[in-house]
Amino acid sequence: MNQFGRHFRLSLFGESHGPGVGVVIDGVPPGLALAFAVVQQDLDRRRPGTSSLVSQRREPDVPRFLSGVHEGRTTGAPLCIWIANQDADSRPYEATPRVPRPGHADWVEHAWSKGFADLRGAGHASGRLTAPLVAAGAVARLVLGANVQVAAHLHQVGGVVGVPGRFDVRSMAAQAGKSATGTAHVELEPRFISVIEEARRQLDSVGGVVEFVAEGIPLGLGEPFFDAVESMMAHLLFAVPAVKGVEFGEGFAAAAMPGSQHNDAYEVRDGKVAPATNHAGGILGGRTTGETIRGRVAFKPTSTLPGRVQRSVDLKTLEPVELRSTGRHDPCIAVRAVPVVEACVRIVLADLLLGARAPLGQDAHR
Amino acid sequence: MNQFGRHFRLSLFGESHGPGVGVVIDGVPPGLALAFAVVQQDLDRRRPGTSSLVSQRREPDVPRFLSGVHEGRTTGAPLCIWIANQDADSRPYEATPRVPRPGHADWVEHAWSKGFADLRGAGHASGRLTAPLVAAGAVARLVLGANVQVAAHLHQVGGVVGVPGRFDVRSMAAQAGKSATGTAHVELEPRFISVIEEARRQLDSVGGVVEFVAEGIPLGLGEPFFDAVESMMAHLLFAVPAVKGVEFGEGFAAAAMPGSQHNDAYEVRDGKVAPATNHAGGILGGRTTGETIRGRVAFKPTSTLPGRVQRSVDLKTLEPVELRSTGRHDPCIAVRAVPVVEACVRIVLADLLLGARAPLGQDAHR
Amino acid sequence: MNQFGRHFRLSLFGESHGPGVGVVIDGVPPGLALAFAVVQQDLDRRRPGTSSLVSQRREPDVPRFLSGVHEGRTTGAPLCIWIANQDADSRPYEATPRVPRPGHADWVEHAWSKGFADLRGAGHASGRLTAPLVAAGAVARLVLGANVQVAAHLHQVGGVVGVPGRFDVRSMAAQAGKSATGTAHVELEPRFISVIEEARRQLDSVGGVVEFVAEGIPLGLGEPFFDAVESMMAHLLFAVPAVKGVEFGEGFAAAAMPGSQHNDAYEVRDGKVAPATNHAGGILGGRTTGETIRGRVAFKPTSTLPGRVQRSVDLKTLEPVELRSTGRHDPCIAVRAVPVVEACVRIVLADLLLGARAPLGQDAHR
Amino acid sequence: MNQFGRHFRLSLFGESHGPGVGVVIDGVPPGLALAFAVVQQDLDRRRPGTSSLVSQRREPDVPRFLSGVHEGRTTGAPLCIWIANQDADSRPYEATPRVPRPGHADWVEHAWSKGFADLRGAGHASGRLTAPLVAAGAVARLVLGANVQVAAHLHQVGGVVGVPGRFDVRSMAAQAGKSATGTAHVELEPRFISVIEEARRQLDSVGGVVEFVAEGIPLGLGEPFFDAVESMMAHLLFAVPAVKGVEFGEGFAAAAMPGSQHNDAYEVRDGKVAPATNHAGGILGGRTTGETIRGRVAFKPTSTLPGRVQRSVDLKTLEPVELRSTGRHDPCIAVRAVPVVEACVRIVLADLLLGARAPLGQDAHR
Repeated sequence: MNQFGRHFRLSLFGESHGPGVGVVIDGVPPGLALAFAVVQQDLDRRRPGTSSLVSQRREPDVPRFLSGVHEGRTTGAPLCIWIANQDADSRPYEATPRVPRPGHADWVEHAWSKGFADLRGAGHASGRLTAPLVAAGAVARLVLGANVQVAAHLHQVGGVVGVPGRFDVRSMAAQAGKSATGTAHVELEPRFISVIEEARRQLDSVGGVVEFVAEGIPLGLGEPFFDAVESMMAHLLFAVPAVKGVEFGEGFAAAAMPGSQHNDAYEVRDGKVAPATNHAGGILGGRTTGETIRGRVAFKPTSTLPGRVQRSVDLKTLEPVELRSTGRHDPCIAVRAVPVVEACVRIVLADLLLGARAPLGQDAHR
Repeated sequence: MNQFGRHFRLSLFGESHGPGVGVVIDGVPPGLALAFAVVQQDLDRRRPGTSSLVSQRREPDVPRFLSGVHEGRTTGAPLCIWIANQDADSRPYEATPRVPRPGHADWVEHAWSKGFADLRGAGHASGRLTAPLVAAGAVARLVLGANVQVAAHLHQVGGVVGVPGRFDVRSMAAQAGKSATGTAHVELEPRFISVIEEARRQLDSVGGVVEFVAEGIPLGLGEPFFDAVESMMAHLLFAVPAVKGVEFGEGFAAAAMPGSQHNDAYEVRDGKVAPATNHAGGILGGRTTGETIRGRVAFKPTSTLPGRVQRSVDLKTLEPVELRSTGRHDPCIAVRAVPVVEACVRIVLADLLLGARAPLGQDAHR
Repeated sequence: MNQFGRHFRLSLFGESHGPGVGVVIDGVPPGLALAFAVVQQDLDRRRPGTSSLVSQRREPDVPRFLSGVHEGRTTGAPLCIWIANQDADSRPYEATPRVPRPGHADWVEHAWSKGFADLRGAGHASGRLTAPLVAAGAVARLVLGANVQVAAHLHQVGGVVGVPGRFDVRSMAAQAGKSATGTAHVELEPRFISVIEEARRQLDSVGGVVEFVAEGIPLGLGEPFFDAVESMMAHLLFAVPAVKGVEFGEGFAAAAMPGSQHNDAYEVRDGKVAPATNHAGGILGGRTTGETIRGRVAFKPTSTLPGRVQRSVDLKTLEPVELRSTGRHDPCIAVRAVPVVEACVRIVLADLLLGARAPLGQDAHR
Repeated sequence: MNQFGRHFRLSLFGESHGPGVGVVIDGVPPGLALAFAVVQQDLDRRRPGTSSLVSQRREPDVPRFLSGVHEGRTTGAPLCIWIANQDADSRPYEATPRVPRPGHADWVEHAWSKGFADLRGAGHASGRLTAPLVAAGAVARLVLGANVQVAAHLHQVGGVVGVPGRFDVRSMAAQAGKSATGTAHVELEPRFISVIEEARRQLDSVGGVVEFVAEGIPLGLGEPFFDAVESMMAHLLFAVPAVKGVEFGEGFAAAAMPGSQHNDAYEVRDGKVAPATNHAGGILGGRTTGETIRGRVAFKPTSTLPGRVQRSVDLKTLEPVELRSTGRHDPCIAVRAVPVVEACVRIVLADLLLGARAPLGQDAHR
């Protein structure tokens, strides 16, 4: 099903080389000032064609509000954002689907759909669908308001990895905003760039990790079963193409820690109880603790390797084929994924916040 | 919301120290031979009190079918499985909720519920809720039938970690079945045990990682947006208490790999197209490839550290408290989590399989 | 799927002649004082065996809280209510499923389940499943609080029909509460009773209509598409066995009215805008207007006619059979349906109220 | 929430006087030949401006496939259909929302949205949203294939009412197709027309009833709780603007029938068990019996009465206002509702059919 969310609910549609891509968002409260520029700004951050580090497809990615906005404000009705495709070049896909591209969804989409899927540019399974996801994240940003702040940045490229947990939202956003690769690890950026450029020179690609933080979250969002905050965020993040791992707080490193070190002791801070440390990454028992939410998302290396010969098969003749992909692709998809991860985190938080019970139900009877 | 699944749908309920724990499963096809022993067998694998490596709470965990089974077969009506609590000892929780236990959900549950949550034994947020999850996994096993096989084992304890991807279902299940810790890394088991026993001696706990594999899955289950196989599995796995990370295929290691190595080339095998390697872990573009599904789940160290003094706060006086927890707890929750991970994987696969479109819709019109 | 509701969510389970019937309710706010007696009181109103007008099956219908309640208050965790069966007599069903009972779900359940359904007493398709529905309605009553009041009463029996729209909640509840048939049309009750008793004498049954009203509903609950208040209420009401029609406001009578008569003009009342009349039945464009919600529910005559010979077929031999049903049944199911309709209306209102957006999302940004 | 359906899932969006209206449909099987003309044909049936009996707004209602269709066939990806607005005239709505129109959703939408709703032409609550619903019905028609046939017709206008249950699909469709008002009651059509024209002359409107039938449905679709076939159909039908009542089979008339008459005896027909009559309207215990599904839908008279003075209130001054509506409206909305009811029935049947369990789950294990 192409829907996500219970209270801030997305329906995603579109294809990489069809008329365009879009999203219908239900549950947007009425009265939010939704300027065109707010969405454009976030879209611009994931836009291709902006540097040598990313794909050279040139899409202006201009969003259009098809519904749900009137005189610059949300109406409370379903909000549809549409982004037309402009620079789709389907020529590189002429061999598709007859010869599937290794590491790509071509083959599975083709087989599942009995040959009816639109495979040009990966069709509906394309990373281009993250454009409306980012647009939805811009709307989520309005729902969250100024108190809830989210940031993400490039944390690892190939074997070059930063120290996790170094940044709060402000410093992460500030430093990543000035960086060509969207990383707050300023000292690592030259190495990130050289790894990416080396991969491109080798007609290869490289994976990466995006780290995110969120602050200003009220205590108690999420549930033990089954809609833990981690469950909801991981659900959405794993739908982003190329994601192969998600972790929160210490994540996989927690496996190697003793409980005496991992447990966050309680203390009194500003007159309120709070964890003294935040190994939990802001989530305990599936609910937010009110502390900073932290996590990391692993992206596999881009599947398409323009210019490189890969082994595949002709689906008709079942003969081996040496496939040389062309097309315009990112050598490290994690770079452009930074605003996508941010959008996903915002979308889940907006969903959880809008679903937080009104005091009505809870307090009216005590 | 306490539900999971679209076609094989669970509603989980119960508390650690209330009358018991249970699950209602909707979508179970009629006519499956559901022997009591099938459920009992899986429950026995996660049962506490069976060795010095795990909690000493002694629960027989006898499941009772409250509905949906008639004359030994499923009826197609909602199936309720109920497991009464017998050995709940609430004395260790007398200080709860006034003094929250570090690393545990106490504090958040207490605050969220404005003090109304049942916090004895962590209440509804307890690991005891994984008992009905395992029971549901036993029903999922019947839905999947003999062709779909799932296994899990203990892959890492503390800093001792095995090589991932070594086992198929048969060898993993066989070796883990003979092991006290549920690991197929037989050569590592002595070290796993010594790490756990050392933690217990130190009044401490330790984290771990569980690895899983699934075979016999048809091609094409799952969707690009938003119900990717990884999304659905991660959603359920992150709802399991203590899980902090989930990865598929190469997972976080993929971030350090070049695409030329990570991409699975296609070849012809047994007259059919198939990936020559399986770095993707059996999932491409959110859909199953028909190859083995592989992944790993990180568990944090057990929060409760019986006998050890931890820093907390008295919620009434806001004074610091030195809290010495008692109660019966697993020093390494990952050990008993092995059958829980297996159950989660089965539940998701059953859900995806039951939701696979009938040929009716697809083929009747061509 | 056995679930209903988005925010106050029910999972219904159980069979007429199995161990019992139950419901898991998710979304109950923590802290509601849920006395055993509150649920019992509502269950007593639909209980069989209480007069000659209803079925002689004697079920004490004692509810048990299996989860979600601690020290007399809801905890916010899923709340399971279980009602054990005690007086199930399966002897009358020995011919079932071989000879299906006309007008009953036997045949369809048998065919759909390929013979695996538990058909004793109609199994999961039994009217007995309305017991946990009524129990859930008692919990919904607490969620709604004292301001929202709901009542239902018997409006029509066979050809004897009252004038709709005569009663507000208070007068309907007061008069129906004193009546043996649960009707506020006191002047019609003798005729209702004689129609029912005549049906029983004729070894026959008779249909009826239940009317309901709800007051104290805030303006704006519900949505134009697709969760109109009428949509949600009709969804739940049509799941009640024997319901064949649902209407709101003027209902089918509106078809014969001119717009100039049906439209509710606006006036200023108590300093606020309000409709001067209420032909709309408290719902416009799918949303509540704040006025009284009114509607009616048509029940078909009870299918089982104890003692009467009906034509059926032996499913094995395909020979015609003269079937004489026995068992204990209500001659007019609408009588006992009154509290069920009330429960359904409360459940939907609780769901809508709990889903009403917190001011947070809406007002925090203006 | 703006979604409907579990397996054939609609997300509706758009406004009467915004850029247009649309629907995203998820769950459409790949490979269906979806000609533009198929959708256009159904849209043409509900199109305004085609006769003096209906609204004079002239909308070509040309659908555009924004996604999910490639080379004339569905791809299996979400299918978005977009219908641009062309003849929206917002001048009649200049007084809106300051002076709400009686019987219309203006006031509630305005109040609910705190003034942010787009009320021109009723915005998202407009009957214009039934255009994408009809488009979705055309897609559902393809999913159902040739075996499942659905028809609807105008059954009642004001006080002129036909005999229910006279027509099968073929005769209903054939006769209604030749009629100006879409009725198969050919002998009543002159009276229907004169009632409608008289209403228009009186600057008034009139209600009506639409009857529907569906044939070729397999046995066993739907469920006892909570997704009865009646529940699903009523849910969708009550979301159609102006619907105030829904009934199946004998409907409200069943209340006046004895069980001995209402029960459908079983007989052997063509070597198979089947009900000898069909008072149940093709649905027993929430599931389809395989017999013809029959029902009726009551529409209130059109709220807007062009030219007539109605009493309202100025929301700012709280002074009474004599409101004379203008704009182009149908004097009897039931006329144009005929294809909408058909679409709703098809959508629900497509949803139920796609959700019918694959034999895989059910038969693979026996």
